[in-house]
This record gives sequence, structure tokens and C-alpha cells, in this order.
Amino acid sequence: MDTVQAPKAPPARPSERQALLLRTARALIATRGLRALKIRDVAAAAGCAVGTVYNEFEDLDELILAVSRDTITALAERLANLSDPDPARHLHALAQAYLDFATEHANLLRALFEHRVENGRPFPKDLIEMIMGAFALMYPPLARLLPASPTEEVAMLARTMFSAVHGIISLGLEERLVAVPQQALRQQVSLFIDTYLAGLRR
Amino acid sequence: MDTVQAPKAPPARPSERQALLLRTARALIATRGLRALKIRDVAAAAGCAVGTVYNEFEDLDELILAVSRDTITALAERLANLSDPDPARHLHALAQAYLDFATEHANLLRALFEHRVENGRPFPKDLIEMIMGAFALMYPPLARLLPASPTEEVAMLARTMFSAVHGIISLGLEERLVAVPQQALRQQVSLFIDTYLAGLRR
Repeated sequence: MDTVQAPKAPPARPSERQALLLRTARALIATRGLRALKIRDVAAAAGCAVGTVYNEFEDLDELILAVSRDTITALAERLANLSDPDPARHLHALAQAYLDFATEHANLLRALFEHRVENGRPFPKDLIEMIMGAFALMYPPLARLLPASPTEEVAMLARTMFSAVHGIISLGLEERLVAVPQQALRQQVSLFIDTYLAGLRR
Repeated sequence: MDTVQAPKAPPARPSERQALLLRTARALIATRGLRALKIRDVAAAAGCAVGTVYNEFEDLDELILAVSRDTITALAERLANLSDPDPARHLHALAQAYLDFATEHANLLRALFEHRVENGRPFPKDLIEMIMGAFALMYPPLARLLPASPTEEVAMLARTMFSAVHGIISLGLEERLVAVPQQALRQQVSLFIDTYLAGLRR
């Protein structure tokens, strides 16, 4: 167990301290990934005591989940800002924006999708809803493309499309495997959307 | 650091011991996932000393990679055993077999795709080739469906299709999110293959 050390940093108001710890944890996850992350590294990088981190976050899981809330919020904002009068172009823009975000924040996105909380605690409902909300942004343009299809079916097709794009991008960016060059991956995603939409329109 | 303890189990030949440790680690990953895995848990479950594990595997990464080699070998064997005179049906069978495997061995498959070796060591080349070999099993039926397309393009389309199916299945099985019921996921994958192939044939 880590012991509580004397604070090394000047005292800050809780909200400031929480924001500092979040920024620090985010930077550590972004550069080194989730696996190596320890509460004591976050404390050291933020210049505060281990006990200070535990005052703000119940445990490492809570800190990682807080970082993931910021990640999905940033992704959803970026996707929600896109619009296009042409629904097919809108879907292309959403997929390319997802690719850009995944390229810029590969480790943060992995932390969002791969982190599992310990001791059988459930994954937080609000975070599930935030992820589902980001998925759902593919729904409106797809509904415009398929006006005759029932809502339920379009929702399922939108989820399928988002999951497929997620798979192509996450495996394509996987430098452990054979990472696809950025421009080739961009074309691969674009060709996939065209092919899938052609199949749906058939 | 773990210290070397006196052996608790009767001595076994190295190959037997290695097989026992592999089976033990595989069972632990399968039931509890990668995150909680520690060398000392594997030693305890196998009834041997921590030092014995280190005699057989350099470190935890090497042990996990050995489990992942078995996982991808089992998956590739199952996929390679499938054949169908109709290439579209063959692709459906490959995707459904992948879904079955991912359902039965969710944590082992996550360990294969999510595990990152520490200290910047490269991911082993032989394991990359084994994963690529499993991906490549979608190539022959797709090549039969698209006889006029250049080899390079079909290879890319096969990789896209495999990655998309992987994304649909891995997010669909994700019980942290809203897990899709098995039968619904089966239909979703099947509809995806039909739609994608219809788009390719256009």
C-alpha cells in the first residue's frame, strides 16, 4: 500500500486540484497508455501526495473513468459539430472525424474502450449513455438516406456502421500489428462507407 | 518484487511444467481477464513456486503472449476448417465462427487484441504473422466473388471486412456497454455481410 505523504504542492481548492489531477492522468494515459498507470505516478507528476489523489478520487478506476468521460465528451462534441445537407457526405465526415480523433488520441480512446473496472463493479451508467450518445450521431443522416425504413432498423444499422468503422480504424491504427498508413486508412474508411451505403440503397 | 520460494509441487519435466503453467494462465485470463493477472497468482493456481514460472517464462508479458499464440492458433484452425462452394456462404460461415469463438473466449480474445508489452519492446513478429494469417482467411472467398479485381484491392477489402466484423462483434459483446443478445448479434453480422457484399457487387 502507498502511504500518505506530506503535500509537496501549495494547497489548491478541491475543484482546481481535481482538474489538475485529471489533466495529469490524461497526459500520462495519452503518452504511456493505461497499463502502466499508477496512482503514485499521477501524484508524482502532479506534484502532490498520494493521499491528495485519494481525497479527490476514490481509486484508480474512478480516476480513469473521469478521464474517459472527458474523452467521450470531446469526441461527441467534435462529431456533433459536423453537418452536411447531403447525408452520405455527413456520414463520411463523421467517420473521418472519428479517424482523426482516434489518431490524435489513440491511447485515450483505448482507455475508454478497453478499461474494465475491478472487483465486479458495474461500468458507470452515465458513461455508457455518453458512449451510446456518440454512436447515435450516425443515426440522423442514415435515417435521411433510408426514409422508408423503420426507426428500430435504422438505429441498428447506424450502430452496425459505427461499430464497423470503429473496428476498421482501431485495427488499422494498431501499431502492434501492421499499422495502415494514415492516408491509406482514410481511403479505406471512405471506400467502406461508400460500399456499405451502396449495399443499403440496393 | 516476488521472492523465489521453495517448490510446492512435485518436479515435472520442463515441457510438462510449461504446458501446465500455460493452461493455468489461460484459465485465469479466461475467467478474470487480463488486468488482474499476476505471476504469483499463476504460480499459486498451478501449485508451484513463483521462481518456477520465471524459469519457464521470462516475465508476465512472455506468459501472456504464449497464451495469445494458443488463442490465435485455435481461432485460425476453426476458421481454416470451414469451406463452402458458395463464396458468400463461406464468408458468412467465417464471420459466424468468429462470433462463436469471441463469445466462448471473450477474455482470451481481448487479451490477444488489447495486451501491450511493456518497456517499449516490439510485439513479436510471429504473433503478428499468426493474426494476419487469420485475417487472410477471408481473402480466398472474396477473391472468388470479385474475379475481376486486382489481388491488392481484394486483400484490402478482405482486411476491411474482417476489421468491420471484428468491430461489430467486439462492441456487440461488450457487456460494459449495452451487450446485444447473441441471436440479435448473429443477425446483425449476417445482415452486415449481405449489405457489404451487395455494395461490392454493385
